[in-house]
Amino acid sequence: MKVSIVGITGYSGLELLKILSNHPEVTVVSIHATQEIGRPLSDLYPHLKSQTDLVIEAFDAESIMNKSDLVFFATPSGIASKLSKSFVENDFPVIDLSGDHRLPSHIYTEWYGKEAAQQEIIDQFTYGLAEFTDLKGKKFISNPGCYATATELALLPLVQAQAIDLKSIIVDAKSGLTGAGKGLSDSSHFVNVHDNYVTYKLNKHQHIPEIEQELALFEPELSPIQFSTSLLPVNRGIVASCYVKLKEGLGQAQAQAIIEKAYADKFFVRVIDGLPDLHAVLGTNFTDIGCAYNERTGVLTVISVIDNLIKGAAGQAVQNLNLMMGWDESLGLPVQATYL
Amino acid sequence: MKVSIVGITGYSGLELLKILSNHPEVTVVSIHATQEIGRPLSDLYPHLKSQTDLVIEAFDAESIMNKSDLVFFATPSGIASKLSKSFVENDFPVIDLSGDHRLPSHIYTEWYGKEAAQQEIIDQFTYGLAEFTDLKGKKFISNPGCYATATELALLPLVQAQAIDLKSIIVDAKSGLTGAGKGLSDSSHFVNVHDNYVTYKLNKHQHIPEIEQELALFEPELSPIQFSTSLLPVNRGIVASCYVKLKEGLGQAQAQAIIEKAYADKFFVRVIDGLPDLHAVLGTNFTDIGCAYNERTGVLTVISVIDNLIKGAAGQAVQNLNLMMGWDESLGLPVQATYL
Amino acid sequence: MKVSIVGITGYSGLELLKILSNHPEVTVVSIHATQEIGRPLSDLYPHLKSQTDLVIEAFDAESIMNKSDLVFFATPSGIASKLSKSFVENDFPVIDLSGDHRLPSHIYTEWYGKEAAQQEIIDQFTYGLAEFTDLKGKKFISNPGCYATATELALLPLVQAQAIDLKSIIVDAKSGLTGAGKGLSDSSHFVNVHDNYVTYKLNKHQHIPEIEQELALFEPELSPIQFSTSLLPVNRGIVASCYVKLKEGLGQAQAQAIIEKAYADKFFVRVIDGLPDLHAVLGTNFTDIGCAYNERTGVLTVISVIDNLIKGAAGQAVQNLNLMMGWDESLGLPVQATYL
Amino acid sequence: MKVSIVGITGYSGLELLKILSNHPEVTVVSIHATQEIGRPLSDLYPHLKSQTDLVIEAFDAESIMNKSDLVFFATPSGIASKLSKSFVENDFPVIDLSGDHRLPSHIYTEWYGKEAAQQEIIDQFTYGLAEFTDLKGKKFISNPGCYATATELALLPLVQAQAIDLKSIIVDAKSGLTGAGKGLSDSSHFVNVHDNYVTYKLNKHQHIPEIEQELALFEPELSPIQFSTSLLPVNRGIVASCYVKLKEGLGQAQAQAIIEKAYADKFFVRVIDGLPDLHAVLGTNFTDIGCAYNERTGVLTVISVIDNLIKGAAGQAVQNLNLMMGWDESLGLPVQATYL
Repeated sequence: MKVSIVGITGYSGLELLKILSNHPEVTVVSIHATQEIGRPLSDLYPHLKSQTDLVIEAFDAESIMNKSDLVFFATPSGIASKLSKSFVENDFPVIDLSGDHRLPSHIYTEWYGKEAAQQEIIDQFTYGLAEFTDLKGKKFISNPGCYATATELALLPLVQAQAIDLKSIIVDAKSGLTGAGKGLSDSSHFVNVHDNYVTYKLNKHQHIPEIEQELALFEPELSPIQFSTSLLPVNRGIVASCYVKLKEGLGQAQAQAIIEKAYADKFFVRVIDGLPDLHAVLGTNFTDIGCAYNERTGVLTVISVIDNLIKGAAGQAVQNLNLMMGWDESLGLPVQATYL
Repeated sequence: MKVSIVGITGYSGLELLKILSNHPEVTVVSIHATQEIGRPLSDLYPHLKSQTDLVIEAFDAESIMNKSDLVFFATPSGIASKLSKSFVENDFPVIDLSGDHRLPSHIYTEWYGKEAAQQEIIDQFTYGLAEFTDLKGKKFISNPGCYATATELALLPLVQAQAIDLKSIIVDAKSGLTGAGKGLSDSSHFVNVHDNYVTYKLNKHQHIPEIEQELALFEPELSPIQFSTSLLPVNRGIVASCYVKLKEGLGQAQAQAIIEKAYADKFFVRVIDGLPDLHAVLGTNFTDIGCAYNERTGVLTVISVIDNLIKGAAGQAVQNLNLMMGWDESLGLPVQATYL
Repeated sequence: MKVSIVGITGYSGLELLKILSNHPEVTVVSIHATQEIGRPLSDLYPHLKSQTDLVIEAFDAESIMNKSDLVFFATPSGIASKLSKSFVENDFPVIDLSGDHRLPSHIYTEWYGKEAAQQEIIDQFTYGLAEFTDLKGKKFISNPGCYATATELALLPLVQAQAIDLKSIIVDAKSGLTGAGKGLSDSSHFVNVHDNYVTYKLNKHQHIPEIEQELALFEPELSPIQFSTSLLPVNRGIVASCYVKLKEGLGQAQAQAIIEKAYADKFFVRVIDGLPDLHAVLGTNFTDIGCAYNERTGVLTVISVIDNLIKGAAGQAVQNLNLMMGWDESLGLPVQATYL
Repeated sequence: MKVSIVGITGYSGLELLKILSNHPEVTVVSIHATQEIGRPLSDLYPHLKSQTDLVIEAFDAESIMNKSDLVFFATPSGIASKLSKSFVENDFPVIDLSGDHRLPSHIYTEWYGKEAAQQEIIDQFTYGLAEFTDLKGKKFISNPGCYATATELALLPLVQAQAIDLKSIIVDAKSGLTGAGKGLSDSSHFVNVHDNYVTYKLNKHQHIPEIEQELALFEPELSPIQFSTSLLPVNRGIVASCYVKLKEGLGQAQAQAIIEKAYADKFFVRVIDGLPDLHAVLGTNFTDIGCAYNERTGVLTVISVIDNLIKGAAGQAVQNLNLMMGWDESLGLPVQATYL
């Protein structure tokens, strides 16, 4: 299968290329960006020397449809919304890693502050939380956000099992700096991040409506959730610390059982005893989830950890491709933790 | 005033010596430890060369009472409980930075898993949360824990003003590695901490009963609080992210006003607009507090940040000494952030 | 091919297992350690859950020879020297990642301060600097040290080409903390390493005689080299900054050409324009080398960077296995940089 | 004494303000920048809240001369060269922390690539390496660069004592990110710096001619020195690892004695046994120096460590002010290491 990547120079685009170059069924035939057109990618990223001969091309929908079988958008928000239409109209498969096709257009505009794609285009997309959606045969997949993936995987089994008080959900989520992209700003300057911990976009993060929308699929009564995002002084990783009130009569054993059952046959989610260690998932497509019930307060803490660029972006996109195509879901995906 | 420090080789002991060496009214006349007796401290810590001539002495209560006017305990838990009695019985002033005189003996034993001091000795101690206690003329002060300080300062104004639902308190607190002490273990090995984020002692941290006890002073109806502690890959700093439901009718303006009013005349607590930045307090005795109300969920997020070794330990101990003596509370205390 | 790993719980042993699990021709049939005998490895390292079923076994030479075709020693120094004899006497293939078979016994004892293996056993081993040795058909390979690999690859082409003043070699080498092993000590405590840079074992590092020995193979006149080692506050990576006087008449172009020519057909050494970036090799078996000539001083700076656990240990060991077996040298080896 | 700071928003300007606010003889009466004119500094840097009421002013030489007794330039290179003239012509004291008055104009232009100040203005300035210059009564001081300070203090005693081969000097220097300033670039983006180590400006760093000039004062025969600069993934600190050949007949004892003698009465240079630890000087105006002689190679390694923003910039500027005024050289200067 031949694929094209639009937005190759961002962290997600590069990670996607890396993963796909290990994929036995896929060949990346073109990579696209808005800058450095005509330059070999390995000129810009010397670590890719001897890894790829691909040359950066300008975006051209027709050319992509001619030479490829599927296009990945690994673009910042507000780009794929402008480019997806011709693919959809030609029934040409799309996996969009950005947030542009995850939300109804009016909600998108409210939270992203940008013009949304047309609603009828958005309607064609299936939200690809790999463990919870049947993607076989789908043509247009909207890949979940990084914070959203970690949070939904932590909470969905409990919501689905009606085990928690829906008004009680509080999520304190943290991300490494790659989650904030390559843009230069005071908030990404080394000196300001190192030895620091900063909470940002509080109550305003654009993954909030996405999480609420997905939880609501399983429980329409869902209230708005409390969700905070902070920057950890590391490069990679998301930790979602979720606090929920368990319903009466439930405790540690029941909560653990609910989560374990939900993922019993899911290769990329590991439910662990105790609390997860971020190191254990870095460099992989795994999500590790652990929980601890507090008998004094009735609160269950569920912590999930992922690599934001893999399970939170490029890895899940490839997992979704695998599911869409009916292949083994782990094809090409990294399973060995960097660990150190 | 002459003082002695017991437990000089721990992080808190060293920080205490550093702060006191800038104090215009205090001279440290002896330093005590269980190891390296007889060695100049600056032999062990070359950064103290030309800073101090003090030689480490074995602990001896009588000798301390003869040459000093006050003793600081900067010892691990389980030590001061064994050593404080003779000082108390002789009415000799003590400031204990450890947790040994903060809790009733049965609660101490339950949470610390160690033998407690005698209840009648504990009863002599006043809990020294500097901004909330009148310490003038007190003789025996129990210095608050680092997590407890950050959390209590964030929440007490709201509890006191009856502004929050007491059953709703959830605190996600994080600390740098100095908070975990100098002990060698896998969990303090550089490779395991760096690029990681690990939640530990969940629902079991010994500061939980201390926080509950202090909040309950202002609101006896207080339920147990949900409180988690994690290690940030930094050396210093505590961030306490507190989530509470505001009572109906209250919002951002009221919450901000309540907190600002509580600290209007408190030099070492700065209530800021927006959310605090850990960098701004590192190296100082300040606590910075900010809050943000979420109209969609009714949850107020209150974040407080401190330097765990200063406001969370040695700095507050000196602040308490100042208050005890009727001096200006900022005497000798660092106010300039390391910042970078 | 079936192999056994002795010393599985160290950083190199775990990395070796990780790499070999991707190797199409190799199966790890047993793993050995001195502790935790009988426990599944994935119990100790949760990130290996669903990756391996191997159970830790006690070391037993006979059993290894019965079930395996080759044994890797990934043990601390002073262990393989005691265990290698029976394998050698039985002509059973060994790849030793430790320093125990790299040096003549008297030099080993002098620099390592430990009892050496018997000289006749050491004599059976070939030093496996993959790019400079013909290993095909060899049975006993002594894998180079991490600092040694980076330094030798930087300097050997220039020594071989007689391009430099042999008395002028000065190497300022730096390593991440995994290079120092898992042992607990003040020098590996997070607080002491973070935000610090410490030079250690100056003029005494045990890789010095190893480097001198290898350079001398190509130039017997070699003087002792000046070599320093420091700890970078990172987990992985070695940077060897080498300073050498170029011989008269040579400059940037000639030096660059000499190095490029030496590695023209070596897949795992990339000679780059400009100076290398540590990020570009982390997670891979690559060595990146760059050089810059200073016309004002006549000094050529050659900088080489490697991942200490891969090209500096487990990766080169597998590369050596591939060469020994006549397989493609890159079989199973990681080529994609973690990068971030 | 009243002083003004031009360039308040850079790292050095802020550090200067911090130090001066502890100085018993100095009051900062005005602060200047090119942006944010009219705003209180504490609005921009919340950590200064309750620390200073100063408001940022536009630069105006006349106004400064009217209200101040001395002006500090803490500006990037290329600014003070344009602004110093009127102060010099009015015999108004200046301490310039930038490189604009350290070098003859033609050398400045060659290495900085910028237009130099007029030579007759440059000639009025005295280079203020505090330990080696008599500054009493001087009016115009050019403050040394950060790398230059660390390197010169390591090497000058040996050069002065004619103890080393002048052609042999090789310096491998490293700096934390604050040394690179607040500018936003890929090379200061957190993701690129963290877990990395990058050598930059090799053989081209603008501190090279400054170091050569100062060493040549004590030894006119000095050859060009080999000098490299790299970025450590930390915020603060410089480590200068210097390699020099000792002259025949000299060894560890003599080298140590030469360095110790040079600094016997210098408070801010501590000659230590063994090698220095960067932690020991962070937050202070100290320079720690240690050396180790290698009998096998005849090379002496001298390592000096400083806090780049203090002894390498603002601290030494204040030390120079103290010397200029005939005050105790340590007045107002920080001596307590952050340490952790």
